[in-house]
Amino acid sequence: MDTTFVDREQPRLLQELSEFLAIPSVSTLPAHSGDCRRAAEWLRTELTRLGCPVVTLIEGDGHPVVWAEGPAVPGRPTLLVYGHYDVQPPDPLEEWDTPPFEPTVRDGRLYARGAADDKGQVFCLLKAYEAVLDSDGRPPLNLRFIFEGEEECGGRVISDLLRAEPERTRADAALVCDMSYYAPEWPAVYTGLRGLCYAEISVRTLQRDLHSGTYGGVAPNAIETLVRILAGLKDEDGEIQMPKFYKSVEPPSKRELKTWRKLPFDKERFLHEEVTSRALTGMKDYSIFERTWALPTLEIHGIRGGFTGDGAKTVIPAQATAKVSLRLVPGQRYEKVGRQLERAVAELTPKWADAKVTLLHGGDPVVVDVDHPAFGVLDQAFESVVGRKAVQVRAGGSIPIIPELGLAGAPVILTGIGLPDDGLHSPNEKLDLAQLWTGIQIFGRFFELFAEQAMAKDGGTGADESVAEAEAVEMA
Amino acid sequence: MDTTFVDREQPRLLQELSEFLAIPSVSTLPAHSGDCRRAAEWLRTELTRLGCPVVTLIEGDGHPVVWAEGPAVPGRPTLLVYGHYDVQPPDPLEEWDTPPFEPTVRDGRLYARGAADDKGQVFCLLKAYEAVLDSDGRPPLNLRFIFEGEEECGGRVISDLLRAEPERTRADAALVCDMSYYAPEWPAVYTGLRGLCYAEISVRTLQRDLHSGTYGGVAPNAIETLVRILAGLKDEDGEIQMPKFYKSVEPPSKRELKTWRKLPFDKERFLHEEVTSRALTGMKDYSIFERTWALPTLEIHGIRGGFTGDGAKTVIPAQATAKVSLRLVPGQRYEKVGRQLERAVAELTPKWADAKVTLLHGGDPVVVDVDHPAFGVLDQAFESVVGRKAVQVRAGGSIPIIPELGLAGAPVILTGIGLPDDGLHSPNEKLDLAQLWTGIQIFGRFFELFAEQAMAKDGGTGADESVAEAEAVEMA
Repeated sequence: MDTTFVDREQPRLLQELSEFLAIPSVSTLPAHSGDCRRAAEWLRTELTRLGCPVVTLIEGDGHPVVWAEGPAVPGRPTLLVYGHYDVQPPDPLEEWDTPPFEPTVRDGRLYARGAADDKGQVFCLLKAYEAVLDSDGRPPLNLRFIFEGEEECGGRVISDLLRAEPERTRADAALVCDMSYYAPEWPAVYTGLRGLCYAEISVRTLQRDLHSGTYGGVAPNAIETLVRILAGLKDEDGEIQMPKFYKSVEPPSKRELKTWRKLPFDKERFLHEEVTSRALTGMKDYSIFERTWALPTLEIHGIRGGFTGDGAKTVIPAQATAKVSLRLVPGQRYEKVGRQLERAVAELTPKWADAKVTLLHGGDPVVVDVDHPAFGVLDQAFESVVGRKAVQVRAGGSIPIIPELGLAGAPVILTGIGLPDDGLHSPNEKLDLAQLWTGIQIFGRFFELFAEQAMAKDGGTGADESVAEAEAVEMA
Repeated sequence: MDTTFVDREQPRLLQELSEFLAIPSVSTLPAHSGDCRRAAEWLRTELTRLGCPVVTLIEGDGHPVVWAEGPAVPGRPTLLVYGHYDVQPPDPLEEWDTPPFEPTVRDGRLYARGAADDKGQVFCLLKAYEAVLDSDGRPPLNLRFIFEGEEECGGRVISDLLRAEPERTRADAALVCDMSYYAPEWPAVYTGLRGLCYAEISVRTLQRDLHSGTYGGVAPNAIETLVRILAGLKDEDGEIQMPKFYKSVEPPSKRELKTWRKLPFDKERFLHEEVTSRALTGMKDYSIFERTWALPTLEIHGIRGGFTGDGAKTVIPAQATAKVSLRLVPGQRYEKVGRQLERAVAELTPKWADAKVTLLHGGDPVVVDVDHPAFGVLDQAFESVVGRKAVQVRAGGSIPIIPELGLAGAPVILTGIGLPDDGLHSPNEKLDLAQLWTGIQIFGRFFELFAEQAMAKDGGTGADESVAEAEAVEMA
């Protein structure tokens, strides 16, 4: 692959990405479901333009999955590429310097919701493929693209699809480009992701709001009751107070802990520039890496109850609601944790209240065995473009669909071109354009190297045991 | 006073009251400031029609105060009538059976926001005056009307006025009709009201919302921090956890406690039909009357933070806000309690957070000496219309302006025509029409009796020491 594509095409690529990012594909807000479809259609058009003979929107009870297959390249391995075209809601809007769906370049960074998570990275993969086609004139391997529209909202379309058609996503490896470098100039590959159990807790204490003068002193206040339940689920040091919660937690391996201890880490910069706080919280006996990568947490994402307009209203509120989630680590299963949460809330609920826990979505934690040769290929690609191999870390976030990808033992390569300060899920989310331009070269190179490595493994005679070959035989 | 007025005029009166209630004079919401003015104008028109030679809207930094003076009746006492034309916000709107500003009669009850608190009662006083004029052909005493538009939001227009012109409200007694019967057929007069200290508590832990995957485990969550502060301000039994908070609290008198013990009280009905809960909360060593009338409380009225839309968003929120108020009892001062709250919040705030307490408004508690002869007159009026004297109780609510009314020792008669199940500040607020019709007769009779009593006191020669007389002398 020659490296002139990016230099030549930068203005056009920036224009195309801006067009993609301008579509407010906020999957969790029903008002944006038309926009989610527009983003899916944008991908369909793009994949068709890239010469994929199969491009379909797979429908279900939610936003469609975009599925595409590159031209068949007999004898070459098959790579599954996963990404998502939906984005988080942009609020609080007033904290954005420029509107979230009007992509804007400042100081070499492209600001927009989805710039890094994950539209910018999906775009990077598509353009890496385009760059290889541009340079080599033909695809080096069999590509399968699966882009979902419900990663941020926990929809069921993709998992219903994978359950109905477990063979569809069979591949020699899966590439999931939804992550970031460990630090600037430090590309990363991920050995694990936390799982997620997302729920809403609603409390009702009265049939109607009451006057706090008349009834204050005897009438149970729904916000106060919810507040005590939430305070009771976790102690001040961050330890989750649910019976047997930590029992099944598997600690990280010695090798991982050793790697983490050697990572460059500037705690002051992390605190002030990334976390933007005065102090950190959490379980003090554990390192920051352990707290964010290898221990479960419980966060309150939103709370609402009573009168929240301007001014004063003296009600005793009858009901209140909070959204919470638990991040889970190896050894934990989200369905079991959901039941533990329900029980813990029931135990914390006083006799005067009804508390209801609604599980909204979840996914199990991910553990990746990075000893597979595909990771050596990724290292080569990073080394050839940015001069450094990928460092092996974990991530505290979750991609709930990964455990369901039905890869039958094939490796999941979790990596990405983001940077730690991209502001995922926050106002002023951005992507450094330099990361995009090098990313296109890295993944273009990876596609080529992955094909070569698989062929070398088979003595240059073609990847007999590759998925493409197996399919050809089956179809015969 | 003959009693035919109400029987004759019911349809017109209902029509007029409905017109008044249809004006959404929600003082706390800036969007309704035009409606507050319309309600004030409605009163101006009405007071002018009733023959008041002085009717003015007194402007200030907020909604106007309506001030009116009835025709001067030399030799007769002066009664100050206080009420408010503003109402609480109607939300949650979905819980109203009919829209809050479309007054609707069902089963002899008029449903609308403000029906009981306080527009319906202001209307009752105006129509009582009209009934007396209709019956007697002339006013029996000197009336002064002061109706404010900021009782529910803690505005400063009326208190600025009273501070600037402390003589304006001088009277032989003040009648405040913003209360309810103790129970159906049990008219009440109030010996005390709780004070109020209303504040907003805002917490910020981060400069921006963060991804709960990436930072969950170390980044301080603003909602969690606020939740712990709120849980720390009061224990589970309702005891407020602020240093020296109970020190200045004066217990009710033995006479009051004795009266309260004799009050008819159906705890099951109170719990299920009024409070509409499964159990009561609060300080168990005290009776329900003590908890709601004679002990301070702290309530959370509203809370907001993070993502509260539909679906799921996995942020660690940077900031969160709650509205709280304390009800205060004799011995406590709202300004001092405000400082105590600020200190308590500061002590509960961890090092990673900034917490800000904004005092929105307040008022001191009220104690009324019901030995004054005016209360005997009120008893006569109640007895003549409903066959029973007023029972002496307290109320847990607050009318912050009363301590500022500058009455120089003249009594404040706190009473009203509401019923305990009127749903003040709640959805489906209502006024029983039977209460309105008898109320018009009660207060018409009270106006006449109050004048007669004062004249009798002066040996029938005219109330030499009345306020009206004193003013005439001053003006001479």
